[in-house]
Formats: sequence, structure tokens, C-alpha cells
Amino acid sequence: MTDEIVVVPGDGIGQEVVPAAIDVLEALDIEFAFREVDAGDAVKEATGEALPKETREAVASADATLFGAAGETAADVILPLRRAVDSFVNVRPARAYPGVDALRPETDLVFLRENTEGVYAGHEARLTDDVSTLTRVVTKNASQRLAEYACEYAAEEGFTVAHKANVMRETDGLFRDTVLEVADEHDVPADTVLMDAFATHVCLDPSQFDVVVCPNLAGDVLSDLAAGLVGGLGLLPSANVGPERGVFEPVHGTAPDIAGQGVANPTAALLSAAMMLEFLGHESEAEAVETAVEGVLSDGPHTPDLGGSASTAEVTHAVIDRLS
Amino acid sequence: MTDEIVVVPGDGIGQEVVPAAIDVLEALDIEFAFREVDAGDAVKEATGEALPKETREAVASADATLFGAAGETAADVILPLRRAVDSFVNVRPARAYPGVDALRPETDLVFLRENTEGVYAGHEARLTDDVSTLTRVVTKNASQRLAEYACEYAAEEGFTVAHKANVMRETDGLFRDTVLEVADEHDVPADTVLMDAFATHVCLDPSQFDVVVCPNLAGDVLSDLAAGLVGGLGLLPSANVGPERGVFEPVHGTAPDIAGQGVANPTAALLSAAMMLEFLGHESEAEAVETAVEGVLSDGPHTPDLGGSASTAEVTHAVIDRLS
Ligand SMILES: CC(C)[C@H](C(=O)O)[C@@H](O)C(=O)O
Ligand SMILES: CC(C)[C@H](C(=O)O)[C@@H](O)C(=O)O
Repeated sequence: MTDEIVVVPGDGIGQEVVPAAIDVLEALDIEFAFREVDAGDAVKEATGEALPKETREAVASADATLFGAAGETAADVILPLRRAVDSFVNVRPARAYPGVDALRPETDLVFLRENTEGVYAGHEARLTDDVSTLTRVVTKNASQRLAEYACEYAAEEGFTVAHKANVMRETDGLFRDTVLEVADEHDVPADTVLMDAFATHVCLDPSQFDVVVCPNLAGDVLSDLAAGLVGGLGLLPSANVGPERGVFEPVHGTAPDIAGQGVANPTAALLSAAMMLEFLGHESEAEAVETAVEGVLSDGPHTPDLGGSASTAEVTHAVIDRLS
Repeated sequence: MTDEIVVVPGDGIGQEVVPAAIDVLEALDIEFAFREVDAGDAVKEATGEALPKETREAVASADATLFGAAGETAADVILPLRRAVDSFVNVRPARAYPGVDALRPETDLVFLRENTEGVYAGHEARLTDDVSTLTRVVTKNASQRLAEYACEYAAEEGFTVAHKANVMRETDGLFRDTVLEVADEHDVPADTVLMDAFATHVCLDPSQFDVVVCPNLAGDVLSDLAAGLVGGLGLLPSANVGPERGVFEPVHGTAPDIAGQGVANPTAALLSAAMMLEFLGHESEAEAVETAVEGVLSDGPHTPDLGGSASTAEVTHAVIDRLS
């Protein structure tokens, strides 16, 4: 069966790294039907809407979506796209690679970030000129869904729950307790850490952590922190996983300083495509792409952000060469 | 005039590092009236209350308070003590010191953390068995107070506002806009950064930041992250500053693994005492203590956490020796 893939390059280097990922996917022995649609600053400028209805509907019905990046409109694009596929978990591996400078080369983490609620649930109000409020929502249901996923993902090694339940007793307390309950039911080892203490300890010794399960904003910040330990956002892929569909995106942004020059590092987009392959059940191809990307990271060629002088196309072809 | 100092050693190594700070203060040519009161796990076990009314009242009327650490009851102790002095800013320097291993030796940051609201305002509810909510509060008033302080603190160099206003548009939006308005009125240079991007960039290059103004929880997590870059929580002092009083505390906890052995590192408590001296108007003594502590960090003796074998008392005496 042909997999229907919606492609949303978006703005800036999204227009360069997403086509690179498609080149790699087309080099595999799998039949895909690609459909490209618009989102981001450019389409907003042209039409007034950062996320056209057509794009949202395409993402909501495709098997999977490959997203690039959006500029100023990032939140207006990516948050509705996560909702469009009912994504309950954002999977964010943060790993240091041989051949790439990293502050902590021993970093090998995966964040499983709750993807529907917390402060992202979005109940905000400007009550008076002086007072604004935001209602953060945590439900047992969303915490359970995330925990079930975590128990499958980390069945053997277990996971750590990062939270701030000493202050957010009802909300993060419900999150932590629910996740631990599910882990216990599945006999999956789980421990807990305060999110502020995690921020210190992951710098001091990242090897003490492995899979980290977090509320939404905590996952946002702590995974970006881990990106700093492995050398920046440039290499990190991510998967917004829903029950039937997913949106796969590099963690980096539009990189306006280098956009249009053909030198953007395609690594994060290629690794996001590999996560998409795995989600779609093409495990061996997912592994092949990952191995090829790791080989190129280790031996080159490298784009300028990694100290090399190769173009996006040269790196992409080097990956494709390793696939055959 | 005699300064009235309330002393709250609390639990664990709080009982060791706070007396060390008092020894240093007593070596100065200033008259203090110290009054020691209880708080924390031990007094809770004995009396049922982690924060006796007597302690809260003593802190609320003293010129300043030197606090050590509390264990499980930390939130029940420190949050009410911050309120007792109407502390609107938590000042958290995170600096790497010559002589101490640091992941990023060039780190020299000061966090000015909003200290009254955000998720700490504490309006939480368990609505049903499945749903819990927390109402995060941001006011113009609290943001202004913090910003006025920041403008005095960083009048020359300016500051960076860390926020997440792309998601928390009304609340962090109000925070960011208000702080920028005040900076503009005072002609203090100010820029902004998303808190997740800050987490990445501070790892990659901490020297690009200086004074960082944050909402409450952001300041908690980002300053602990910076602690990881300078070698751990062990060295970081902090000041909870109110309009008339303050509570000064090391950022570290009770360190149950080494408590009672007389080898706790007193640095953070001594630097907190120096911040207290400055708050009380004893600027030259504050500087003298800071310089003495930095000298000992650079030349030793060092406690075991820094690879040495000195006791708390030996380090404290080495600091006192440098004062005279
Ligand atoms: C753009 C923004 C809304 C988004 C988020 O906060 O989730 C981004 O930071 C991310 O992590 O994908
Ligand atoms: C103990 C806890 C409530 C406290 C906080 O979150 O403020 C601590 O982490 C701190 O930073 O002083």
C-alpha cells in the first residue's frame, strides 16, 4: 500500500531540508504519494493565514506529515498541526554523534513530552489591564496515554518522570502519580526527578538519564537544554505521534541567516524522516537511513555549521550513496 | 545600629553551613543581633509544623534572614518565608570560579527571578477525579516591580528577558511587554529570548548573556541549568529581596548523603551572607567576604565535593584568615 505523505516545507531552511528528506525517501524501495502544501510566514503574507484550511485538512487525513519550519508564525502552525493528528506525545531524541562537537559527548536521551495540555491547553485571559491568567490543565487521561506509550517505548530500560509537583501539587502531582501508576501496572521501572534538579544534573552527568517523561512545557525546555549539550538544535529530529497519524519535524527553526544559500544541515530533517519511516512500519528502512546519516556525520561531508564546506545537496547525496 | 538577623539553619547541611556563615559574619567589625529559629523536616516531625508561627513572625520582622535548607518540606518553608518578607525578586548569580571545575568556565550570569506569582501563585484545583487545573497569574504590578529592580541592578549592561510568550501570549506577553516598557522608560538596554531557546544557547555560549530577567518557574529552572554549567548547586548563593527585608539562602539542598560529617561546602552560604551584607548596606564588608571566599576557592583548602579533604570548619577559618 502506498503511504500518503503530506509535505510542509514552511519557511527558511525548511524549503531546503524537507526536499533533501524527500530525496532520501525516494531513494528507498517504498512507494510514497507525496503531497506538498503551504504553511508559515510566507503563506500568511500572501493570504493572511499562516495555516490554510487545506493544509490542516491534508495533515489530518494523511498517513504522516513531514514538516520543515515556520518563522514568526511557528506557534500558529505547529500547535494546530499537532492537534490535527491528535498527537499525545512529542518524541525528542537528543543524542551526541561521533564526529560532531558536543559539550557532553556521552548524552543519549529521549524526551517523551506530553503534547496536548499543560500551559499549551491555552486557556488564557486578560482579566483587567493589570492582571492576566492562564489555566494550566492536566488530566489523568492524557497522562495515562503518554504513560502507556512510555511503557512500550522504554519497556526494558524504564524511564524518569520530570515534574514540579512540589509546587504544582494538584496538576504535576496528578501527572506524576498517574504516570507512575501506569508504569507500575506494566512492571516498567520508573523514577522521578524535579525538573529544576534535572536541569542541573543533566549538565553534570547526562549518562544517569535515559528516557525522560515530561509535561508539555517541561519537555520543551528540558529537551532544548539537552540540545545544548549535544551541540545545538541543528541535529535533533522529533516525532509528534498520534493514535493513527504523526507529524515529523526537525527541532530547529528557519535559520534566516543561512536560508536560501543551499548550505543548511539536512541531518535533523533526515532523522525526522527516519522516525516517520519507523512510525509507518518501515523499520529496516528507518534503521538504514539512521545508519547512513550517522555515517556521514562521523566521516563527512559536513555542512558549514559542523565546520565543513559541503552543501545540503552534497550531504544528502552522501547519505543516499550509503543507502545502496 | 545593630542589625537583627534571624537565622534558620533548617535540615541537613543547613545545620553546618549556616553556623559557618555566622562565624564569618562575627569576624567582621559589625554588630549583629542573631536569633536562631526552627523550620523544616525536623521541627515538623517534632511539632507537626514545618514552619512554626514564631519562625514566620521572626523572619517577617527581622532586618534580614539567613536560611540554610529544608528537606521534604522545602516548599512549605521557603515559599511562605519569601512571602513573609514580600520578596518580589530572587537574585541568583551563577558564576564559574577559578579553581573549580566547570562545564562552561566562562559562565557569569545573574538571574532576576520574579518571586511572587506565575505558577507559584498557587491557585490549583482538582476539578474531578480526571481533571486538575492550576491558574497561573501574571500582573503588571509584579512585572513592573521586578523590572524597576532590574533597571537599577543592570543599569549599564542591560538585561535579557526570558519568556515563553509565543505560547503564553497573555501572561508571559504581559510580563515581557511590561518589563520592556520599564526598561525603555529608564533607558536601560533590554532584549528578549524564548526560554527554550535560552536553554540551548546558554549551553552553547553562556558569555552572550549577562543579567537574565525571568518569570518565577522559568527563573527556577534556568538558574538551576546555569548551576549545571558552573559545576553544580554547591556554590550558588541567592537573595530573596523584598522592599525592606530579605531572606538569603544557598541554592543547594540538605545533602542528606553528607550531612552530619562536618564536610559540607560552606561557599554558597558564605556568598549568601555576602549578599545579605550588601542588602544591609555593608558594601565593603560584602566585597571583603566575597573576595575572601573567591581566594579560598582558587587556592584551597577545598571540601571533598571540590576534590579536597578539608572540613567545613577548615574552609571557614581559611576565609576568616583572609578577612583580617
Ligand atoms: C514554536 C513553539 C510553539 C514550539 C513549542 O513550544 O512547542 C517549539 O518551541 C517546539 O518545541 O516545537
Ligand atoms: C523548594 C522549591 C519550592 C524552590 C522553588 O521552586 O522555588 C526551590 O527549587 C528553589 O528554587 O528555591
